[in-house]
Amino acid sequence: MSIKVGILGYGNLGKGIECAIKQNDDMELVAVFTRRDPSTVTIQTEGVTVANVSDVKDYADKIDVMILCGGSATDLPEQTPEYAKLFNVVDSFDTHARIPEHFANVDKAAKDANKVAIISVGWDPGLFSLARIYGNAILPEGKDYTFWGKGVSQGHSDAIRRVEGVKDAKQYTIPVDEALDAVRSGSNPELTTRQKHTRECFVVLEDGADASKVEEEIKNMPNYFADYDTTVHFISEEELKANHSGIPHGGFVIRTGKTGWDSQNNNIIEYSLKLDSNPEFTTSVLIAYARAAYRLSKEGDKGCKSVFDIAPAYLSPKSGEELRKELL
Amino acid sequence: MSIKVGILGYGNLGKGIECAIKQNDDMELVAVFTRRDPSTVTIQTEGVTVANVSDVKDYADKIDVMILCGGSATDLPEQTPEYAKLFNVVDSFDTHARIPEHFANVDKAAKDANKVAIISVGWDPGLFSLARIYGNAILPEGKDYTFWGKGVSQGHSDAIRRVEGVKDAKQYTIPVDEALDAVRSGSNPELTTRQKHTRECFVVLEDGADASKVEEEIKNMPNYFADYDTTVHFISEEELKANHSGIPHGGFVIRTGKTGWDSQNNNIIEYSLKLDSNPEFTTSVLIAYARAAYRLSKEGDKGCKSVFDIAPAYLSPKSGEELRKELL
Repeated sequence: MSIKVGILGYGNLGKGIECAIKQNDDMELVAVFTRRDPSTVTIQTEGVTVANVSDVKDYADKIDVMILCGGSATDLPEQTPEYAKLFNVVDSFDTHARIPEHFANVDKAAKDANKVAIISVGWDPGLFSLARIYGNAILPEGKDYTFWGKGVSQGHSDAIRRVEGVKDAKQYTIPVDEALDAVRSGSNPELTTRQKHTRECFVVLEDGADASKVEEEIKNMPNYFADYDTTVHFISEEELKANHSGIPHGGFVIRTGKTGWDSQNNNIIEYSLKLDSNPEFTTSVLIAYARAAYRLSKEGDKGCKSVFDIAPAYLSPKSGEELRKELL
Repeated sequence: MSIKVGILGYGNLGKGIECAIKQNDDMELVAVFTRRDPSTVTIQTEGVTVANVSDVKDYADKIDVMILCGGSATDLPEQTPEYAKLFNVVDSFDTHARIPEHFANVDKAAKDANKVAIISVGWDPGLFSLARIYGNAILPEGKDYTFWGKGVSQGHSDAIRRVEGVKDAKQYTIPVDEALDAVRSGSNPELTTRQKHTRECFVVLEDGADASKVEEEIKNMPNYFADYDTTVHFISEEELKANHSGIPHGGFVIRTGKTGWDSQNNNIIEYSLKLDSNPEFTTSVLIAYARAAYRLSKEGDKGCKSVFDIAPAYLSPKSGEELRKELL
């Protein structure tokens, strides 16, 4: 019997979930829920319902896990506690500073409703968090480094698009090789924001816009660019579309730490991702945790969890025997 | 209140456990057990008992977790089931092919005695197994690659030492850069044993031994060297001691996999270790899982587990709130 999955929100993440379900034989897509008029939304999976989110209550008994594909700024803080009253849920809430508050809200709703909710699933937070917790537990005398990229930052691309004279833009976050090498050498460097990442911008100007003015405004934008070495390339709309329409990303989590009676030995743990598609990979992680949410719920568990609370075996469709034989 | 730890076996692993306990404030070393005459064994921690293994029963109420530091060939298959009758135990059993049988034996003993046993803890099996299970669960349409090194293989060094005319030797397993690069390119290469690793040997000859005969014998040794490109260097005993007395190791687990409706996107997950001290790092992992064994036992759990069965939060001394705030 397959795990019945619902998708709430059909943007990049919702579409990614659809692809991930196709790769997992124990999963079945039951319905996609949208705030739009369902008749205007075409999905890729044949024979699956697109419904308006206002009808979601009708599906309470038909869906084992609802995957919430909204944004972290305004959608998920409301949606995850709300839908945890009806479904086991998984979300990708990624506003690090607000995770404790979000966890508490979701935990209360899920416990009251006897549901399992897993929040902040994806790669950061998510797999990178796992690299950090394992690294910290194993090398307590050590130091953490997280680098992002090379990849497209949606937030930074949006910030550029808000600059007057900009028609469209893509921004890449790039880790600095020298900084990565310094960390890998085990020298435990202290690195500034500027030393860790550079930012590269590909910008399409509006007709008649002043390129040097736009470039200055981007480079001096506080929070987004002022603390970084930023390069700005002006390109045509065709070139942007041809060469910069993908959504790649990735990054590195490195834990360096000492062992030995006199802390005389260096050890380096490195975890890295290189992703052609950030949303598709994120949703591949969400689907694995949807499997865990389903199983934990079947076992009678309830409440809010993060990736820290889930034993890895729950993520795999294989049995304990198979896992020990094939992957241990 | 600290977790009371016992060490059974005082070789490289036992010594590593001692160092790891020193780095973890919630751990306390209670006693070291040896098959030797305890008066001949000097340990580094002041004020801690060294006892003969025949007296281990007297410590059943004084130790929360016993860490078994014997070898996988003959010690652990007997020791882990035996001591799981008295203690929560953790071992580093690493004979992959015999894990299912070992798990079953330990599970029965631990369940009968209401104890928790965690087997096959370390980095392979252990952290590399975790990289494999997470990678497989997240990218089901993909391929696994495991590379070892650069590092000292104890088994291969021992094999060289058994060759007639060899006084001492160290063998390094080295992953081939071209193979690593091919895997990282996402091309999913099929790699032979010879293409993945080379073997480099540093050999001290007995007086009057025939170097070319020794070299031939090493290079043609079935299972150990015949399937690899092997280089043999003859060096002096002083040079071996000066430059090859460390026990470094490491390796790479790479999962490459496709995402997207038409499997059109490539994604690469890479986990790697670079260790100055293989036994000290291994025991740092063992100590983190000893913490988990203790906590699971406190919760009333019992039976045999592997790293697949342990939620990451159990490994860290931090609370759930701290973990979510600091590491998620």
